[in-house]
This record gives sequence, C-alpha cells and structure tokens, in this order.
Amino acid sequence: MDETQEGHTSTVSHTDSRPGPSDGQEAAAILEVSRAAVDPELRAAVDALPGSMRRIARYHFGWEHADGTPAAGHAGKAIRPALVLTAAAALGGAPARAAAVRAAAAVELVHNFTLLHDDVMDRDATRRHRATAWTVFGDADAILAGDALQARALMLLAEDPHPAAPAAAARLAACVVELCEGQHADTALERRAPGEVTLAEVLTMAEAKTGALLGCACALGALYAGAAEEDVAALDAFGRESGLAFQLIDDVIGIWGDPRRTGKPVGSDLAARKKSLPVVAALASGTPAAAELAELYALPYDEEDEEGITRTVLAVERAGGRDWAQEQAADLMSHAMDELSRAIPDPEAAGGLLALAEFVTRRST
Amino acid sequence: MDETQEGHTSTVSHTDSRPGPSDGQEAAAILEVSRAAVDPELRAAVDALPGSMRRIARYHFGWEHADGTPAAGHAGKAIRPALVLTAAAALGGAPARAAAVRAAAAVELVHNFTLLHDDVMDRDATRRHRATAWTVFGDADAILAGDALQARALMLLAEDPHPAAPAAAARLAACVVELCEGQHADTALERRAPGEVTLAEVLTMAEAKTGALLGCACALGALYAGAAEEDVAALDAFGRESGLAFQLIDDVIGIWGDPRRTGKPVGSDLAARKKSLPVVAALASGTPAAAELAELYALPYDEEDEEGITRTVLAVERAGGRDWAQEQAADLMSHAMDELSRAIPDPEAAGGLLALAEFVTRRST
Repeated sequence: MDETQEGHTSTVSHTDSRPGPSDGQEAAAILEVSRAAVDPELRAAVDALPGSMRRIARYHFGWEHADGTPAAGHAGKAIRPALVLTAAAALGGAPARAAAVRAAAAVELVHNFTLLHDDVMDRDATRRHRATAWTVFGDADAILAGDALQARALMLLAEDPHPAAPAAAARLAACVVELCEGQHADTALERRAPGEVTLAEVLTMAEAKTGALLGCACALGALYAGAAEEDVAALDAFGRESGLAFQLIDDVIGIWGDPRRTGKPVGSDLAARKKSLPVVAALASGTPAAAELAELYALPYDEEDEEGITRTVLAVERAGGRDWAQEQAADLMSHAMDELSRAIPDPEAAGGLLALAEFVTRRST
Repeated sequence: MDETQEGHTSTVSHTDSRPGPSDGQEAAAILEVSRAAVDPELRAAVDALPGSMRRIARYHFGWEHADGTPAAGHAGKAIRPALVLTAAAALGGAPARAAAVRAAAAVELVHNFTLLHDDVMDRDATRRHRATAWTVFGDADAILAGDALQARALMLLAEDPHPAAPAAAARLAACVVELCEGQHADTALERRAPGEVTLAEVLTMAEAKTGALLGCACALGALYAGAAEEDVAALDAFGRESGLAFQLIDDVIGIWGDPRRTGKPVGSDLAARKKSLPVVAALASGTPAAAELAELYALPYDEEDEEGITRTVLAVERAGGRDWAQEQAADLMSHAMDELSRAIPDPEAAGGLLALAEFVTRRST
C-alpha cells in the first residue's frame, strides 16, 4: 500500500453504503492511540542512528525539514503498527498490546525502509505532500537510510527479550523478502506488453506488494499474544486479504474516482497505461471491449486526448473490469472476515481489527 | 574492504619481512575449510529466495551467469565467515565452530548485500572480474536483491535456536548501520575539498567501512563460543584494527604498489584525486610538500600527465604520507595482537585468527 494513496482517505468522504461495524471514528481513535504508544519507540530507534542516517530518516518521517529544523507533521496514518497492537490486544489483552510496542515500531520502520527505496526506484518525487528523500539527499543517501532502517527494525526485535521476538523477527524478515519480490514484479510487469501479463501474475504481485506487510503486522500482534500457529496464520490471511481488497478498491478509484476527491485527473492511471487489476481483468475477459482496450493501450499516451481516455474508461467498464474488481474486493473482505472470526470468535474482541480493515478498504468510488 | 582489492592478494607475493606465525598457507587452508563448511548454508539461504531475487543473488555470488546457466566461480575468499568460525573455534572449540556456521553465512550475506548496494551507488561496473549486478539487471533489481540479502541474513539468525543468536543478530544489525554511515561518509568526503577533510574523519570512515564488519565477524564467533563480554569486545577490536590496518596498507599499495602486481596503473588513486589515508595525512602535515600536494590536488585530472602523477606521488611521500600510513598500520596490528592475546592467551588457540589477520593485511608494497 502506498502512503501517497493512503493520503486520499483524508479527503475522501465515506459515501460507501456497505454496512460496517464502524463509521471510521473507531478506526481513527485506534490509530491515534496506537501512534501515541508507538511514536516514542519509533523516534528512539531513529534517533539511535548515527548522524547522517538519522537526519535522512527524520526528514523522511516528516519530523524535520530538509535543513534539519523541526517539523510538526507526523508520518502517515501508521496503519501497520496499529494492526500489530490491535491484533495483540484482541488475542492477549492489554499486556500483549504493551509487549508488542517494539514489534509495532519495527513494522513501521520496515514499511518506511521500503518507501525510501521504492521512491528511488520509481523516481517518485513527492510523498505525503513533501519532496521525497532521494530528491533532497540524493539516491545514495536515500538507499543507505533505507538500509539502516531495515537493520534498525530487525535490531529492535533482536534486542527484545519477549519470547515471541525471534519468531516475529523471522516473520518480518521473510516479509521483507516478499516485499522485494513484489516491487520487482511490479516494475517487471509494467515493462511488459499488456496482453502478455496474466491476472494471476498481477494478483500475486499486488498481494506481495500490498498485502504481505499488512498480514505480517497482524501476525506479529498474534505472536506477541502467544497465539497458536493457526491463529497467527489466520490473522496473517486477514491482513493480507484486506490489503489486496484495498488495492482493488484503490485501482477502481484510480479509474472511476471523482478527481475532486482523489486529487488525480480522471483516468490518470489509464493514461499512464498502468496494468492495474481492473485493466488486466478487462484485457483477459475475451470480450469485444477487451480487444478495443488492447488497441487503446497500444497507442502512446496523449495527455490532450480526453476522448481517448473516456473511451478507455468505458472499454474497461464494458469488458467487466470494474464489476470484477468490486466483486473480488467484496469476496476478499468476506474471506478476511471469516479468517478473523475463526481466530477471534468474540465480535467485541475482533471489533478493533474489523474497524481498521474497514478503514483501510472503505473508499468512495 | 573491497573484494576487488582483496583480489590483489592472489597475485601479490609476500615480500613483507615482518616475522609472522604464518606464511599464508595456513590462512589459505583455513579459508578453504571454512568455505566448505559455510557454502551449503549460504547457498541454501540464497536458494530460499523467490525467483527473481534468487537469480540476481546467484549471479552476484558468481554461481550463475547472467543467462541463469551455472558458473564455476565462487564468491571471493570469504574472509568474514572464516573469521566467525575461527573465532568460535579459538574460544569454544569444535562445537562452537559447528554452531556458528549459520552466523558465518549471515555475515557473508550482509557483506554481499553491501557490495550490491555500494556498486550501484559508486557506479562500479566490475567486481571479481565480472560485470556488477546493476549493469546486468538494472539499479532497481540490484537494490532489491541487496535488501533481500540483508533480510535473509537476519532471518538466518532469527531462526537459529542457539542462545547466542539474538545477541549476534543485534550486533550484526548494528554493524549494518555502521556500514551505511561509513559508505555515506566515504561519498560525502570525496565531494569535499581536500583541505577541508580531517584525518580523524577519514579514519572514522575507514573504520566504519572496512573495520566494522571484520570486527563484527570476530565478535559473532566469540558470542557463539559463549565468551565473556570483554572477550567479545576484544575480538571485535582485533578484527576492526586489522581491517583498518588493511585499509592503510591497501592505500599505500594504491599509490606505491607495483602496477604489474596491483593490476592498476601507478598512482591511479592519486589521478582520481582520492582522499585516501596517506594523502589526507600528507595534506595535514604542515610541510612544504603538503602545500605542493594541495596545489596538485586542486588541478583537474589529466591522464596523459605522467609527470604530474610522479610529482604527486613524491609530494605525498615527502610530506610523510607513506611513513605515517606504514607506522599507523604497524601500530594498529600491534594493538590488534594485544587484543587478541588478551582474549585468547594461548598462542596455539589464537594461531588461526592471527594467520587470517596476517593474510588480510600482508601486502607487498
């Protein structure tokens, strides 16, 4: 999940009519309380870095301006650490939640290490409405600061005397490997011709890039609660599937979202010829609209061609891309809820995780 | 320590007259036996990576050609894993050595992660006589493969049930942070004017970049032997100081080495205006030769200007750069030996580590 896209939520009103246990207020409160618990650990971990690495990391987290003066902003919504703490609390109550604070900070450090590196690779110039670290400090320093944050994350867990710490560290490190493979696949898929990309490949990539760390966050919380292996696995699946559902909904917004709400021009993902999930599903549909879409996607991008964009949007829709994505997202969320209630049968105990999943996936389309 | 430079040792004869306990044969035998012990663990860790990351890593290690066909070459001399095993054996005998194999593989994975990233940052096109990974797979994939190797290294230790594993993981992660700061400092120092760089800064940088991981390797071996904290610290200092001594000697070779033996043209480091340790010491000497050197270093590099290079070599020498570097290296080695014998008073038990340190630092000048 991309923080830039996460940024949409603050300006997107919740017009989704799907009934949920939460109106977003509960999730906002959980995020707030979680940030308050994790922030000191996170800042201590970053401040323990040597001078240059600390400076770049503090800039990236939004705690400092480029010149080193303090900045007020905090670093995104920090959904992942909230998932760690909320999963720990759901399965092990307040003591597990308190014990999992270091693990929550470690997950957030890993997330930010991948953001630093992804921005270098994708040449993204802004994140969270600020210039990305590589544009300020150069590629080399952004790469090094990312490397140092990964090391710092795994160091936090290595130094944690909690009995769950080694398993948590192994799981987080395995997740990093999956994130790397996902980022590689994303870049590789974008280089290939649209017709050569299968839906299964794009789903695997999206799960690795977006679902894996959300699943890992939930699993780490379960580990710190001393949960049984099948409950750890169920919570991993819950986070993973919620993450993939988020990606599907985000792709739908990227095509059909209201530009006043998304902050992006209509169809900008299509104009950029992105192989998003609805597009690949549409291309694979075998419909006449799929053939038309393939032709349109073969044309070079022309930003003046509003009619071309409109035709492309319609082709994806008529080829079933929108319906498919929405059904998939609903199926995934339904399955995620099954996993959640399997691990945590008490709806009250599961409420916090449900609220966070709804918050992550609930988007105005 | 750079593997490319390590590569010199195979062609450099040992004309150093300093008496040592070893003629290099002992070290070569230790390296051979160590590689045989660590290689299966290292290959298993790399082969457990997902497809793309595995392919890039296998290429980088020299086990595969760029097209994925098997290659015969092995990846460098693997001095660091040999230090882990030899330190473990010196302090804890054969059982400690056997227990430390995973840690040895983890150290080698970390070393190779930093090589992958350093090559991207430094735009180095060859390593171990082969095209570097970024030139074959692109920057993004080389960065990702490095990230995955770091994760895999710390995962090996997180999954290791040995009681020393958490402390080893914390120490290795802390070392990664130091390596990052060292690489940052190296790049930053090269961008500054020669007169503005202090000797202390260059020594700190060289210790972080070259000494830290050699020290960490020795310390990890000591941890797996269940050594007392002061012995772990002494072995870290032994490895660190040997590493810094190596760097000083390597810098001397980079200026005064025989091109037929080093494979580099005479004075190539000077032509590139490198702020190596002998040069910075010479510039800081306050001698008339220092002023001449500063003037020469301010001139742009002209590869045709053999007379200019000769004058620069002489200026560094007359300003005392060569003598200083050789004295420093001797002092460091002497101190490293003190640390070694403090932790391991029995000369026979310490013999293997001594042989490896001699092997690392013994260079024809």
